[in-house]
Amino acid sequence: MTTVGILGGGQLARMLALSGAPLGLRFLVMDTEADACAGQFAPLLVGDYRDEAALAEFASRVDVATFDFENVPAESAEWLATRVPVFPNPRALSVAQDRLVEKNLFRSLGIPVGEYAAVSTRAGLEAEVARIGGPCILKTRRLGYDGKGQFRIKSAGDIEAAWQALGAQADAQAEAVGLIVEAFIPFQRELSVVAVRGRDGEFRTWPLTENWHVDGVLSASLAPATIDDGLAQLAYGYANQLAEALDYVGVFALELFCKDGQWLANEMAPRVHNSGHWTIEGAETSQFENHLRAVLGLPLGDTRMLGHACMLNWIGELPDRNTVLAEPAGHWHDYGKLPRGGRKVGHATLRDDSAGELSAALERVGGGLQRMPQVDPVLKALQ
Amino acid sequence: MTTVGILGGGQLARMLALSGAPLGLRFLVMDTEADACAGQFAPLLVGDYRDEAALAEFASRVDVATFDFENVPAESAEWLATRVPVFPNPRALSVAQDRLVEKNLFRSLGIPVGEYAAVSTRAGLEAEVARIGGPCILKTRRLGYDGKGQFRIKSAGDIEAAWQALGAQADAQAEAVGLIVEAFIPFQRELSVVAVRGRDGEFRTWPLTENWHVDGVLSASLAPATIDDGLAQLAYGYANQLAEALDYVGVFALELFCKDGQWLANEMAPRVHNSGHWTIEGAETSQFENHLRAVLGLPLGDTRMLGHACMLNWIGELPDRNTVLAEPAGHWHDYGKLPRGGRKVGHATLRDDSAGELSAALERVGGGLQRMPQVDPVLKALQ
Ligand SMILES: Nc1ncnc2c1ncn2[C@@H]1O[C@H](COP(=O)(O)OP(=O)(O)OP(=O)(O)O)[C@@H](O)[C@H]1O
Ligand SMILES: Nc1ncnc2c1ncn2[C@@H]1O[C@H](COP(=O)(O)OP(=O)(O)OP(=O)(O)O)[C@@H](O)[C@H]1O
Repeated sequence: MTTVGILGGGQLARMLALSGAPLGLRFLVMDTEADACAGQFAPLLVGDYRDEAALAEFASRVDVATFDFENVPAESAEWLATRVPVFPNPRALSVAQDRLVEKNLFRSLGIPVGEYAAVSTRAGLEAEVARIGGPCILKTRRLGYDGKGQFRIKSAGDIEAAWQALGAQADAQAEAVGLIVEAFIPFQRELSVVAVRGRDGEFRTWPLTENWHVDGVLSASLAPATIDDGLAQLAYGYANQLAEALDYVGVFALELFCKDGQWLANEMAPRVHNSGHWTIEGAETSQFENHLRAVLGLPLGDTRMLGHACMLNWIGELPDRNTVLAEPAGHWHDYGKLPRGGRKVGHATLRDDSAGELSAALERVGGGLQRMPQVDPVLKALQ
Repeated sequence: MTTVGILGGGQLARMLALSGAPLGLRFLVMDTEADACAGQFAPLLVGDYRDEAALAEFASRVDVATFDFENVPAESAEWLATRVPVFPNPRALSVAQDRLVEKNLFRSLGIPVGEYAAVSTRAGLEAEVARIGGPCILKTRRLGYDGKGQFRIKSAGDIEAAWQALGAQADAQAEAVGLIVEAFIPFQRELSVVAVRGRDGEFRTWPLTENWHVDGVLSASLAPATIDDGLAQLAYGYANQLAEALDYVGVFALELFCKDGQWLANEMAPRVHNSGHWTIEGAETSQFENHLRAVLGLPLGDTRMLGHACMLNWIGELPDRNTVLAEPAGHWHDYGKLPRGGRKVGHATLRDDSAGELSAALERVGGGLQRMPQVDPVLKALQ
């Protein structure tokens, strides 16, 4: 009997546990919140990731550990790794936790990225914005997610407000999380590679997924993305290089901008990813099952698609369930969370054999839920 | 928040809970055993189904109740139904619990069955065996499962041994479970209709499944079965009639013998069924999810198949997991049970786009696991 420990008890941990049950696995989820939604289907240990006693208890009850949450303190992951195998390894986690270190790695591997620079003073920010020339985004280096900790700088006039909002985070050496300024990329499309690497180095990707964000939060994903095969192979190659460089084990996502037929890497997420949720129904093996297979050293599952799939995120609250369930293509995912503004509370996946059938289903669902703005970009991409 | 109560905490309850989580459901499973395997992923209430205090606690904690186990005492189901909605309804459950009542219902609906008769004395058994003429099977009317409580009577000379084995069960009025004698059907094939009926009477079936038993226990299932469409429609019609007659809500299986191009009904199982396990990967909506949708009055999900699927049962102990996981078509289901002779401890489903690819995968798995006898009949049927 193997028990997999998961740091973080949100929907990712929940879906990991649900997909790991058929493999005969048991789970232990650790979260700071007693009502973490994974706790509805797996034993939950409530504790702070920095509390060594709690971590020690966690370690004593699991055979291997992984993450639902990438912002676990690097020291906690390292401490844990002295007790039990931890996948992905703490170094990979710490690289992916820091936008600056991550972008430096991208660059060193020849993975194209937009202009960026570390920022530690207001004068430095001004200088970098001037150097980059054109709109920028000031971001925290660490602990950002779902577009939080970001400030758009359209012109030099916004620097004051940006510094007001995030300047306190500038000192990367202190308690603060550090800052990075990036060129704003006027991309045409956003895509992600969801990939998995096994303990033995075997590497697989699901087909490229196209993503649409609203207010920095994922709104919809479509797979397979319609894309030139050469470009797709390039993207899979980047993901492979990255996984090799980090000796990464498990599932991760590489988020890419596509601008004028060129890739620019945005960031990597060192975990199962929202843009891979469609794999539950839309692929022979889901990202959740393959993450567990990788972490446990089992053979990786087939990542081929079954038709065409679109994932719609439910943010803040769930829309009418029956509109989705009445659709032959419709699959519902309620994370068992209380509604709260900005919170990811569920998603739906529509899966169908052809792009045309998927479009028709999306139109009915978008119309039925009065969410045409959410499905419109997907419909356009499907044309 | 809706909590579904499940009487019985075996693998069926476990798979119900896993498939119901994405619908946002919570579960409470009741079982007599503290290590019931569904308890690994759902809260478990340990208690006897005849213990009113335990049942009352169960009722107080759930919004609706259903079964993983059809041999819950009819009185317990009825008592429960005075407290919470129970699906399938206790009458349907009690009909399906009794082979005699069930076969009488089949006959009254015009669903063909082989010769059978109630047996309450040894003399009666002798007379019925003589009347039926040819091989028979003596079975307990109630509480049989996986071929238990059965005795084959090849000729009159076996009657003594049959009576020794089961005669004590003859008095259907007392504590005993009653006896029925059936003609032994020299069928060519065994198939099942797995079907679902909603609260509103909507009825759907998955494609007919062909089944192979070893020692009275399901060994392998194949879907879709290769069968004449007229025969298939007849079978779906029987299932529909049965569901209507019982005002059945939820998933059930109708097990049929096919002899010389004619159907003879064997029995109905008033629950999700082992011959429907392939629907997890092989159908747009699994039997488990559709059972829950039916029980909750939600729209039923699409029952269309995704390619071709074969389920292999693991009895007693699990074979090598990696042989199945290494197969692109392979999906593993470990029920989290301790190995024990005759126990259903898991299954594998192989799903592929074409019958040819499925055959090839089955040959590799059968060879790799040294289980060619288990896969051979399926390979023959796929030719
Ligand atoms: N440099 C940029 N140029 C243009 N758009 C950007 C840039 N950086 C971020 N965005 C937009 O904001 C979204 C969220 O940004 P980012 O991925 O950096 O945030 P995050 O908080 O890490 O989000 P997530 O949790 O979704 O990974 C991106 O998907 C993209 O739509
Ligand atoms: N009358 C019959 N003629 C021929 N074979 C029979 C007959 N009755 C049962 N069998 C064989 O034995 C198997 C199990 O019998 P049956 O379905 O009655 O038992 P059960 O204990 O209810 O099994 P399960 O739990 O699988 O439903 C059948 O699937 C069939 O292969």
